[in-house]
Amino acid sequence: MTGFEVTFLGTGTSVGVPVIGCGCETCRSEDPRDRRLRSSILVKTPQLCLLVDSGPDLRQQCLREGITTLDGVLITHPHADHVMGFDDLRRFTPGKDDRLRVFASTPCLDALKRMFFYMFNNANRFPGYFKPEPHVLEEKLGIGDLEITPIAVEHGNVECAGFLFRHEEKPVFAYLPDCKRIPRAGMEALAGVGCLVIDALRPRPHPTHMSIDEALAVAAELAPKQTWLTHVSHEVLHSREQDSLPDGVDIAYDGLQLML
Amino acid sequence: MTGFEVTFLGTGTSVGVPVIGCGCETCRSEDPRDRRLRSSILVKTPQLCLLVDSGPDLRQQCLREGITTLDGVLITHPHADHVMGFDDLRRFTPGKDDRLRVFASTPCLDALKRMFFYMFNNANRFPGYFKPEPHVLEEKLGIGDLEITPIAVEHGNVECAGFLFRHEEKPVFAYLPDCKRIPRAGMEALAGVGCLVIDALRPRPHPTHMSIDEALAVAAELAPKQTWLTHVSHEVLHSREQDSLPDGVDIAYDGLQLML
Repeated sequence: MTGFEVTFLGTGTSVGVPVIGCGCETCRSEDPRDRRLRSSILVKTPQLCLLVDSGPDLRQQCLREGITTLDGVLITHPHADHVMGFDDLRRFTPGKDDRLRVFASTPCLDALKRMFFYMFNNANRFPGYFKPEPHVLEEKLGIGDLEITPIAVEHGNVECAGFLFRHEEKPVFAYLPDCKRIPRAGMEALAGVGCLVIDALRPRPHPTHMSIDEALAVAAELAPKQTWLTHVSHEVLHSREQDSLPDGVDIAYDGLQLML
Repeated sequence: MTGFEVTFLGTGTSVGVPVIGCGCETCRSEDPRDRRLRSSILVKTPQLCLLVDSGPDLRQQCLREGITTLDGVLITHPHADHVMGFDDLRRFTPGKDDRLRVFASTPCLDALKRMFFYMFNNANRFPGYFKPEPHVLEEKLGIGDLEITPIAVEHGNVECAGFLFRHEEKPVFAYLPDCKRIPRAGMEALAGVGCLVIDALRPRPHPTHMSIDEALAVAAELAPKQTWLTHVSHEVLHSREQDSLPDGVDIAYDGLQLML
């Protein structure tokens, strides 16, 4: 253990599980592992508390996990299920001059500036407004006791990143919640990662997300000690799908905590 | 009773109650009336089911109330607490050619088009994407068995509307969740309204929202049969504040249903 902790705030796909208006077995399931808020994690080290993605469930997730301070936010890409709670980050900049660092690629920061223009235009400076401090994250960057490497992945027509976290010089953890394919450079950067969290939407293929089999192929190649599947749709009933996975691969669930 | 029904999906202010990181009496309260999602209502008549505002809690609210179909959405103004669940409306246009009518002022529709550009640009037409059909609502409009009149109100520097609903030719209901002042023309349009729902953020004044006293003054002038206070902050403990209100005025709460 290196003092690197992860909490899964959400492990669901864009519409969450249960899905509004759906009566399928998973959406009716009473297994708490089948209740999936939109995908997001909290990363904690002795020096830092970082959020990855700020989806529409952010307030619920912060209340559930008792999150009251953050040192920064990483955004993988600006799709709705990853950013629509961005305004709720105002609770983490309560004072007049407080700012919260937001780390993302230039196109992702540009999208945030378009969607949440009122936070970035230096107008409307009411005390309660969220004051983001944008930082471009396109190459590896030291933040506190972490070194974070963005991993460019294919995910439809949006530029999208996963993140590799090095702590105490070890590649402890990687989080790639939305991807269809990891280009060769990304696979090389991920070599030796200890714990991998990866998009595995459902058993059957999807044009912009990995299927479970596609995620398993990545896990087999990288061979981390442990792989967790995330960004999971209602086509996955936890108790049933879990049984068919190889050793060292499990389906993540909301509230899961890892001590790495 | 005219067959006009209202369900309060949320009655809270922009950050909801409890507030992230707050340990005040209201935020610690176990009274369910003190747990307030962001303000939104559902209006039902024999012919229609309309949502007013689509805040970040929309998915939770639809699941809680079992909402599976909508005939349209009205938006009061494009602040985050009223629109950040807009993407979750995709569940109400599941088919390839389904569209959902969105009624708002021109500046509000423009803001939605800027924030949610991918829904309006005719690109990215995956089956699951929300397909809004924008309609300008700046004068009274017949929708099914309703006549809806937008009421322009003062609310900081954003153009903001409340809505008056006429059903069977009677001014049954008005909903004004965000306002600091209702101009004279609006007060005249609201004359004779049967049930008023109005912004009443907290006891002490706020620059862009009515205090409880300011809301009571509007209720006294319009003299509806019943007034409900909404968009309520954690400075209002339901059980305590309710006791000081005059007859015919009550604090709304999440899940409250009215049959008018």
